[in-house]
Amino acid sequence: MDAQPTGLVTIPARSGKATRVTRGQRIRVVNTHGAQVVDTWAFNGQDLTEFMSMEHTRAHALTVFPTVGSTLFTNRRRPILTFLEDTSGGIHDTLIAACDRYRYELLGCATYHDNCTDNLASGLRHPGLVPPETPSPLNLFMNIPVAANGSVSFEAPVSTAGSFVTLRAEMDLVIAFSACPQDLLPINGIDCKPTEAHFELLA
Amino acid sequence: MDAQPTGLVTIPARSGKATRVTRGQRIRVVNTHGAQVVDTWAFNGQDLTEFMSMEHTRAHALTVFPTVGSTLFTNRRRPILTFLEDTSGGIHDTLIAACDRYRYELLGCATYHDNCTDNLASGLRHPGLVPPETPSPLNLFMNIPVAANGSVSFEAPVSTAGSFVTLRAEMDLVIAFSACPQDLLPINGIDCKPTEAHFELLA
Repeated sequence: MDAQPTGLVTIPARSGKATRVTRGQRIRVVNTHGAQVVDTWAFNGQDLTEFMSMEHTRAHALTVFPTVGSTLFTNRRRPILTFLEDTSGGIHDTLIAACDRYRYELLGCATYHDNCTDNLASGLRHPGLVPPETPSPLNLFMNIPVAANGSVSFEAPVSTAGSFVTLRAEMDLVIAFSACPQDLLPINGIDCKPTEAHFELLA
Repeated sequence: MDAQPTGLVTIPARSGKATRVTRGQRIRVVNTHGAQVVDTWAFNGQDLTEFMSMEHTRAHALTVFPTVGSTLFTNRRRPILTFLEDTSGGIHDTLIAACDRYRYELLGCATYHDNCTDNLASGLRHPGLVPPETPSPLNLFMNIPVAANGSVSFEAPVSTAGSFVTLRAEMDLVIAFSACPQDLLPINGIDCKPTEAHFELLA
């Protein structure tokens, strides 16, 4: 296995990062500056075609908003991560696709804009992996309220600087993060300033 | 192009069916016996790696419950279908994965159980196609209420016999249906008896 990083690892602003995690280890994801969405993916470490799936998770966790105690499932309906701790206010999203070049083109960008879909691919490049597809991510700290009639809206995070979530790996896996580069909508805070975030592997 | 079917086409109970559709054509999906969920997928007819995506649709339609007037988007954020008519009560699902062999194994099935994931693949076999992946489907007539706290539940359809939805193709596409074979939970009605459904291509 590739060497695991120790201590706090930076997810640079607008960028992706990935690492292998051993079953039973915990992963703490820190919202360092408080308003940064972190798109998160997890893949079976032995077979990347099995991955954390929001549509399968909703069918088993029976919620659109995972919270402490929730198990996250793969597309083969096996537990892959468990939500252990959350000091961020408990608002995370399972509904919205990773941003991509098409998203920014529709928002008027005439030139390339960093995006979470490409960050997944570039983050996995360091462990030498290629994503088999772009699963719908677990969008940590992302605030997408669902109204009684089912309408959704894009809001600023409720998290605060230094708040975090802790997840436990339920299988040997590869976890990938993208510090979302969205700076045209206030999903990363009303200042529209994407920042770095951090993660740490714990025993 | 393969010849298009004319008149009402049967989606046999527990099975899949697919056909090519020309941009501008309408597709009517009939809930013949009233309580049958029809998992629905649409793929760009020239490039199956572009397909209708629930997670991208929610980001643009800004709802978890598409209704008359809603546009459904691909994973490249282009319109692929528009909801034109709905006599079924307007309850459809975008949240839940297609059922698959893992689902039925967890529900206690010791032998093979028909499932919507395999039905997508077998339905596409007649036009000679292979799905690049199993996108999260548009589950027509499927009743998955979302409570104020985000919890979801599996309920019987509200649709009635002969009720239908009409969709318009916004590009040349391949549409695939599965008459969901779920008979262990009351998602296809409280009798847990999956039935056939029908579709028709209109000018």
